[in-house]
Amino acid sequence: MGQALQERALKVIPAGMWGHQRVAAMPSGYPQFFTGGKGARVTDVDGHEYIDFMCSWGPIILGHQHPEVEEAVAARWNRGDCLNGPTDQVVELAELLVNTIPMADWAMFQKNGCDATTACVTIARAATGKRKLLLARGAYHGAVPWCSPSLVGVTAEDRAHILSFDYNNTESLAHAVAQAGDDLAAILVAPFRHDLGIRQEEPTSEFVTAIRGHCDSTGAALVLDDVRAGFRLDLGGSWEPFGVRPDLAAYSKAIANGHPLAAVVGNDRFREAAGQIFITGSFWYTGAPMAAAIATIRELQKSGGPELIQASGQRLRDGLQEQSLRHGFELTQSGPPAMPLLQFSRDHDARLGAAFCQEALSRGVYMHHRHNMFLSTAHTFEEIDKALEATDSAFSALAKKRKAYE
Amino acid sequence: MGQALQERALKVIPAGMWGHQRVAAMPSGYPQFFTGGKGARVTDVDGHEYIDFMCSWGPIILGHQHPEVEEAVAARWNRGDCLNGPTDQVVELAELLVNTIPMADWAMFQKNGCDATTACVTIARAATGKRKLLLARGAYHGAVPWCSPSLVGVTAEDRAHILSFDYNNTESLAHAVAQAGDDLAAILVAPFRHDLGIRQEEPTSEFVTAIRGHCDSTGAALVLDDVRAGFRLDLGGSWEPFGVRPDLAAYSKAIANGHPLAAVVGNDRFREAAGQIFITGSFWYTGAPMAAAIATIRELQKSGGPELIQASGQRLRDGLQEQSLRHGFELTQSGPPAMPLLQFSRDHDARLGAAFCQEALSRGVYMHHRHNMFLSTAHTFEEIDKALEATDSAFSALAKKRKAYE
Repeated sequence: MGQALQERALKVIPAGMWGHQRVAAMPSGYPQFFTGGKGARVTDVDGHEYIDFMCSWGPIILGHQHPEVEEAVAARWNRGDCLNGPTDQVVELAELLVNTIPMADWAMFQKNGCDATTACVTIARAATGKRKLLLARGAYHGAVPWCSPSLVGVTAEDRAHILSFDYNNTESLAHAVAQAGDDLAAILVAPFRHDLGIRQEEPTSEFVTAIRGHCDSTGAALVLDDVRAGFRLDLGGSWEPFGVRPDLAAYSKAIANGHPLAAVVGNDRFREAAGQIFITGSFWYTGAPMAAAIATIRELQKSGGPELIQASGQRLRDGLQEQSLRHGFELTQSGPPAMPLLQFSRDHDARLGAAFCQEALSRGVYMHHRHNMFLSTAHTFEEIDKALEATDSAFSALAKKRKAYE
Repeated sequence: MGQALQERALKVIPAGMWGHQRVAAMPSGYPQFFTGGKGARVTDVDGHEYIDFMCSWGPIILGHQHPEVEEAVAARWNRGDCLNGPTDQVVELAELLVNTIPMADWAMFQKNGCDATTACVTIARAATGKRKLLLARGAYHGAVPWCSPSLVGVTAEDRAHILSFDYNNTESLAHAVAQAGDDLAAILVAPFRHDLGIRQEEPTSEFVTAIRGHCDSTGAALVLDDVRAGFRLDLGGSWEPFGVRPDLAAYSKAIANGHPLAAVVGNDRFREAAGQIFITGSFWYTGAPMAAAIATIRELQKSGGPELIQASGQRLRDGLQEQSLRHGFELTQSGPPAMPLLQFSRDHDARLGAAFCQEALSRGVYMHHRHNMFLSTAHTFEEIDKALEATDSAFSALAKKRKAYE
């Protein structure tokens, strides 16, 4: 059925699919269409079940079909969701975020992660009256003209006020700040380096502190793009462990366990500007995703979600490390254990990584060879151990074909 | 309760709410928070029920909580919605759009209306290798920097390649085309003039034909922004009655009866470029809104939705016209009857309009004094007649206060 759908898709969808779901971006043999999910498992349209280490590319943080979340959604749904104005959940959720995220004095909601990053940039420019935006080279902040990783259909003017620095490089950062002169509106930065296909890097404390310092001395906004990592590492914001707080932060992905929502939170310095810009969308006020977000965040608080996910991620990492050594592979595992990236040493084109993921896939484990993966609270130790059984067998099969990748 | 929510909102949401839902944009006394909807009725958090002529600002086209739509959503929901890839609904919906919209050879899906308009612009630039974009002065195409009605936080470069013309003015159009020289990527236009607070205008056949002609002679894309009107006027696209077809069209709002979805459809000339640009979002592949769209479009086809809505809108228009004359008011009703705008003559600041809407509101009818309204198939003649009873009384009350507005 997956094959037939792919053939039909090629007729009515350009290139068969768009964005990160384009088939060409996946190792061959990967399913493109899915039919269901439950806990840490997903099922493709051909009925194959997988232990899922992508979590829908981030949104699923409590496992698929989490009962409390779906109950909250259904309760809102059955009364009405998309109405002439917001439901009371918009206030309840804003209050919950303000109480959960120490830097947040207020919140606003959108649909896409890049609705939120774009809003942060607009608020920063409105508040500062300045224009320049500093971004780390290679960082992903969305797929609209000002930040898309592709330049196809994008004009030079879309990037006119963007200056770049290298992640974790304070010298390069200082140089970009100097380039901005007295026109610096914001530094927009991911909580750790999670660019596609390269080793993930935690920020150094020096780097984080330098960013805060430049923003303080210039009046620019420190914008944390917590779209991908938010709520998975620290419910208070992914830089809380550094004790460094952004002025504005963008959230989406895991905020509502798969329901479509994004959020901007900010401190009081940026409240007035946030109230002056005009951003909106037809579906930005619907209640069900907000009800889902309230249930998701409360459940994460109650269960200590980030700690659970971290422990499961560490167990997966330790298991894979032991297995790779035993089977004679050198594995680089980077990023936080909750959002791990798997790479084989000297596997510059990720061919070996793709082959490993294909072996794991055929044994019922869905992983990714170039993008960071995601774990959820549904990834219990039992599920991790089942996945490790499959990866052990995958390493073993890969070892026999090793020559093809050398 | 609405009052208490407003007070709480002011503490945790900048200006109490953002975008078109900002309280300050509504006549005083208007409810800000809602709790439910059913058919043509909505209920605010204080338990007041209204016959609803905003339809959630457009998305509700079959009435709130339409059984077939909600059943399709629940069926998808209960299996899993946000998965590692799309469900089979993405193909089914793309096929349905290609079969329903004559100009459409392919489709792609997003969340917001301006995701779709932005994608159209990017595709047009990618396909033509040109940059200039022609927009009608005052037209609304979204609330991101390149098209937002506000310039707060927006830079000059965000609008660098935009040229303007006056809607329905072929001379002004020709002038803008000439300004673009050999760099014209697209003309982006709404199917009729529905700018905020001014009399709505149907396009002249001459204007529509001129746009098509300029696009044909320059190779630019004709992009129809059918986000607001799509599926309400003509299931084949809002310019089908003119026999003029766009190259790309943007849809959202009514496509899934309130579920969050947007779509770009295009012809084969733009297929390759559409397959080359990079656009994506975390929630763009979820199945439930696509299931809702399939059910919505099929139901509109089966019931002859646009004709039903047009007939109800005409009945409302005729009734209001008769009432206004009888009560001594001069009313201008503009736009298609399915998307009517009510204005009082010589009421330049819309104070009289606001007062009328307030009188109607207190009699259980929710209308808008500056934005076009929306009807749905749930606006049966019975509901229209009930609404007209209330508006008759509203006109009567207004007549007694007339002096205050002269």
